[in-house]
Amino acid sequence: MVSVTVWNEYRHERELPEASAVYPDGIHAVLAEALEERGHDVTTATLDEPEHGLPEHVLEGTDVLVWWGHEAHDEVRDDVVDRVVEHVRDGMGFVPLHSAHNSKPFRRLMGTSCSLKWREEGERERLWVVDPAHPVADGLGESFVVPEAEMYGEHFDVPQPDALVLVSWFEGGEVFRSGCAYHRGRGRVFYFRPGHETHPIYRQDEVRHVIANAVRWTAPGDGPRPAYENVAPSEPPE
Amino acid sequence: MVSVTVWNEYRHERELPEASAVYPDGIHAVLAEALEERGHDVTTATLDEPEHGLPEHVLEGTDVLVWWGHEAHDEVRDDVVDRVVEHVRDGMGFVPLHSAHNSKPFRRLMGTSCSLKWREEGERERLWVVDPAHPVADGLGESFVVPEAEMYGEHFDVPQPDALVLVSWFEGGEVFRSGCAYHRGRGRVFYFRPGHETHPIYRQDEVRHVIANAVRWTAPGDGPRPAYENVAPSEPPE
Amino acid sequence: MVSVTVWNEYRHERELPEASAVYPDGIHAVLAEALEERGHDVTTATLDEPEHGLPEHVLEGTDVLVWWGHEAHDEVRDDVVDRVVEHVRDGMGFVPLHSAHNSKPFRRLMGTSCSLKWREEGERERLWVVDPAHPVADGLGESFVVPEAEMYGEHFDVPQPDALVLVSWFEGGEVFRSGCAYHRGRGRVFYFRPGHETHPIYRQDEVRHVIANAVRWTAPGDGPRPAYENVAPSEPPE
Amino acid sequence: MVSVTVWNEYRHERELPEASAVYPDGIHAVLAEALEERGHDVTTATLDEPEHGLPEHVLEGTDVLVWWGHEAHDEVRDDVVDRVVEHVRDGMGFVPLHSAHNSKPFRRLMGTSCSLKWREEGERERLWVVDPAHPVADGLGESFVVPEAEMYGEHFDVPQPDALVLVSWFEGGEVFRSGCAYHRGRGRVFYFRPGHETHPIYRQDEVRHVIANAVRWTAPGDGPRPAYENVAPSEPPE
Repeated sequence: MVSVTVWNEYRHERELPEASAVYPDGIHAVLAEALEERGHDVTTATLDEPEHGLPEHVLEGTDVLVWWGHEAHDEVRDDVVDRVVEHVRDGMGFVPLHSAHNSKPFRRLMGTSCSLKWREEGERERLWVVDPAHPVADGLGESFVVPEAEMYGEHFDVPQPDALVLVSWFEGGEVFRSGCAYHRGRGRVFYFRPGHETHPIYRQDEVRHVIANAVRWTAPGDGPRPAYENVAPSEPPE
Repeated sequence: MVSVTVWNEYRHERELPEASAVYPDGIHAVLAEALEERGHDVTTATLDEPEHGLPEHVLEGTDVLVWWGHEAHDEVRDDVVDRVVEHVRDGMGFVPLHSAHNSKPFRRLMGTSCSLKWREEGERERLWVVDPAHPVADGLGESFVVPEAEMYGEHFDVPQPDALVLVSWFEGGEVFRSGCAYHRGRGRVFYFRPGHETHPIYRQDEVRHVIANAVRWTAPGDGPRPAYENVAPSEPPE
Repeated sequence: MVSVTVWNEYRHERELPEASAVYPDGIHAVLAEALEERGHDVTTATLDEPEHGLPEHVLEGTDVLVWWGHEAHDEVRDDVVDRVVEHVRDGMGFVPLHSAHNSKPFRRLMGTSCSLKWREEGERERLWVVDPAHPVADGLGESFVVPEAEMYGEHFDVPQPDALVLVSWFEGGEVFRSGCAYHRGRGRVFYFRPGHETHPIYRQDEVRHVIANAVRWTAPGDGPRPAYENVAPSEPPE
Repeated sequence: MVSVTVWNEYRHERELPEASAVYPDGIHAVLAEALEERGHDVTTATLDEPEHGLPEHVLEGTDVLVWWGHEAHDEVRDDVVDRVVEHVRDGMGFVPLHSAHNSKPFRRLMGTSCSLKWREEGERERLWVVDPAHPVADGLGESFVVPEAEMYGEHFDVPQPDALVLVSWFEGGEVFRSGCAYHRGRGRVFYFRPGHETHPIYRQDEVRHVIANAVRWTAPGDGPRPAYENVAPSEPPE
C-alpha cells in the first residue's frame, strides 16, 4: 500500500459545465477512486486550499504525488514548488498527468521547456508499449486505445527518458512519447500523457491501470541518502 | 569525405520484376549514387560475390558499412558476420537499413531478436524527429512523409537506443522507433527503418539525406583503442 | 518469493585447494544460502550436470537465473545458451556475477565483447552508489568496501547500461562500472562485478544484499508478450 | 571553427594571490588561449561586466558557451540565466567546467541539485574513458592523470547522462562521473569536472584537449527548430 496524494488544480470542474459533467467532484476524486480500488491509501489536495493543500507535513506523509493542472500553473506558489521538488529529490514519487507537462514542478525537474504541440479535436489515440520489461507496462496488452483525446504531438521538449515505455499514435498523423520514466536524485518520476478535463479518460480501465502502475513504480525505495558536503581532509574513505 | 561500402543482398532486383523496375541496377547502386552526391567515396558489395564482397581488406578500407538485406539473411556466412562485427567494435560505422533489422550483424550487435510487426500495404508513413539535437537530424524538418511504405510496428525488440532520433507514424495505427543510435565498443550504429525493394523510397530526398547524415555520424572517431588484458601485477597505474 | 536458479561452473572449487577452502560446497551453495536467507526459493545447477542442469523444464520454473562461470565458458553448449537467452528475452531475470562478464549468455545479450582489464592482487575495492533511486541500491549505504578483490578495470566493453547503479574504485588506480542494469526484450539483466573463487566475497553481507536486490529487480514482471508477425492486411489496428 | 564565448566569474584570480599566481589574467584567458590554439574563434566575458558580459547580441553570436564559476554563483542575475538557458535549448552548446556544477544555468538545465562531495587536498586524479565511441574521447588515451586536484566525489546529483564518457578515480577513495553528455532541446551540454582556481589544471594538455573536443561536440547542429503550438483543427498533418 502506497500513500498517494492526488493534487488537482480543480478549476475547470467548477467553472466549465462540460468538465463538471464528466468530473462532478473533480478529477482528483476520480483518480483517488481509481487508486483506492487498486489498494492504495489516497488523500487529495487542490490549488485553492491553503498552501495548495501541500504543507510540509502532507508531503512528509506522501509516498507518491500525482499531479493534474492546466490553466493555473502560474498560480502555484514557488515556495510550494520548491518543497515538492525537494521531496522528489529526496525520494517521493511524482506522477504528472497530461497537461501537467507544463506544471512548474515537472518543468523544474526536467530542466527543459516541456513544450509540445496540441489539438483539441477528440481524436483517436492508440498507445503502444515499447518497453515490455518496464514495471509500468505490467498487465497491459501490446496497445490500447483512448477513443477521444486531445492530441499531443512531438517534438515534446523533455530530456531523453531513462526509459521510454509508451508511444502514442494519433489519427491526425502525430506521435508522442506518452509514458516517460526518470530518476531524479533519490526519486522516480513518471510522466503519463492521457487525460483531459472534458473527456472521461480517467474513467477508462487501462488508463487507471497505468496510473496505478506508475504509483507503484515511483513509490520510494530505500536507496542511500547521499551526503553532499565537504569531506574533511582527515577523512578520505581510503 | 567518408569511405562507405554499401552492401546489398541484391536478389530481389534480379528476381522480381517489380523490384528491378524500381532498382534496375540494384538498391546498392541507388544508395551509392545518393551518398556520392553528398560527397562520400562509395564502393558496393553484394551477397553473391566471393566472401560476399567483404574480405578483410575491404572492411579495413571501410569507414562506414551500409547494409541492406531481406530474404537471404541466413546465407550470410558466419565468418563474414564475425568480421563485420569485429570491425564495428573497433570503430567502423554501421548503418543497417529497413529489413536489415533482421540481418545477422545487426542482431549480433544488439543482443536481442530485433523482431517487429509488419504489413505490406503501401501505407503512408510520417517520420517525426524526437531528438532535434542529434546530428542525424541535421537539415531535417520536424517531420517528413514516405508516401507508400511497408509498415513496421512496435514492439521492435531492440535494446533501448542510446539516442532515439526518429519515430514513425503509420496510417494503419502503428508507431515505430525508426531512427535508433547506438555505441558498440569504439563503433557507432544507426538503424534507419525506411526502404523497400519495390517502393522507390531510396530515391526520396529526405530519406537519402538521413542516410547521408547517418554515415557522417557513424564515421569512425579517434577514441582510445582499449586494451583488454591482464594488467601485470607490477604495473597498476597508481 | 522469487524462484531462483543459481548456476555455477563448479570447477575451481573441486580442483583448486584455495577455492575449496573458501567454498567447500561450491560458490552456488553459498549464493543459494544467501538468497534463501533473504526469502527466495533457490535451486542450483552446475556445468557438469546433463544439459548443464538447465533443461527446458528447469528454466520454465525459474524466475531469475544467477550465473557464475570462469574457466570453462567455452564448454557451455550453444543450444543451452540459446535456451537461456530465449528465456531472458521472454522475461526471465538474469544476474551474471563477476567473471560471468565473459559468459556466453551475457555476451550474447549484450552484443559486445564484454572484455575488460584485470589484475589478481587482492586489492581493496570500494563500490559507490551512483543511482540512489534504483531498486538495486535499496538498503545500501553510499559506498561499501570489498577488502580483497581481483581488480576489474575500464574499458568494460558493454553497451551503455540502461541504468548505471554502482561504480568501483580500486586501490591500484582503476574504476569499473560494477552494477549495470539492462532491459532485453521482456527480461531484465543486472551485471554485478564482485566475486571470486578464492576470496570469500560471497560471504560478505553487502555483496549478498546487492545480489538479493538484483534478484528482486530482475524478477519477471507482467508486461505484454509482443507478437512479432505479419499483421494481415485486413487487420490494421485502426 | 566554432565561435566560443568563455565565461569566467573572475573573482578568485583578482582576490587570492594563490589564484593570480596560476592564472594572472584569469582562468578565461588561459581557456581562450587553449581553444584558439585548437582553431576556435574565442571571446571572453566575466561576471562584473554589464549583464555579466552576456547581452543578447553576444549569445546570438555564440556557438558554444564555456562556463567557469565558483564563489559567486548567486550573483549571476536570473534574467541572464534565463537568456543562457533559452539559447542552449535553441541550440547553443554549453560546457560547464568544474565548480560550474553548481552554477545557475547548469542546475536549471539538469533539474537536480547537482550537489556532490569535495575535498581540497591536492589529490591525484585519474580519468578513465568509459565510452571510446564518443566524440569527446577523440584523441585521448585510455586514461590520463591530473596530478593535483580537488576531489569531487559521488553521489553527483545529476540526471543519468545521455552518454557517460569519463569516470575519475581519486587517491582518497572516491570516484566521479567527470565527463557527462546531455541533449537539452536543440542544444548539447557537456559537463567536464577538472579545473581549479589554484591548480594549473587548465594548462595541462589533456584537459585542454577534452575541452576543445567538448566545444566541437556541443557546437550547434542544424536539427529542426520545433514549433510548440496549437495545431489548428484544420491542419492535422494527415
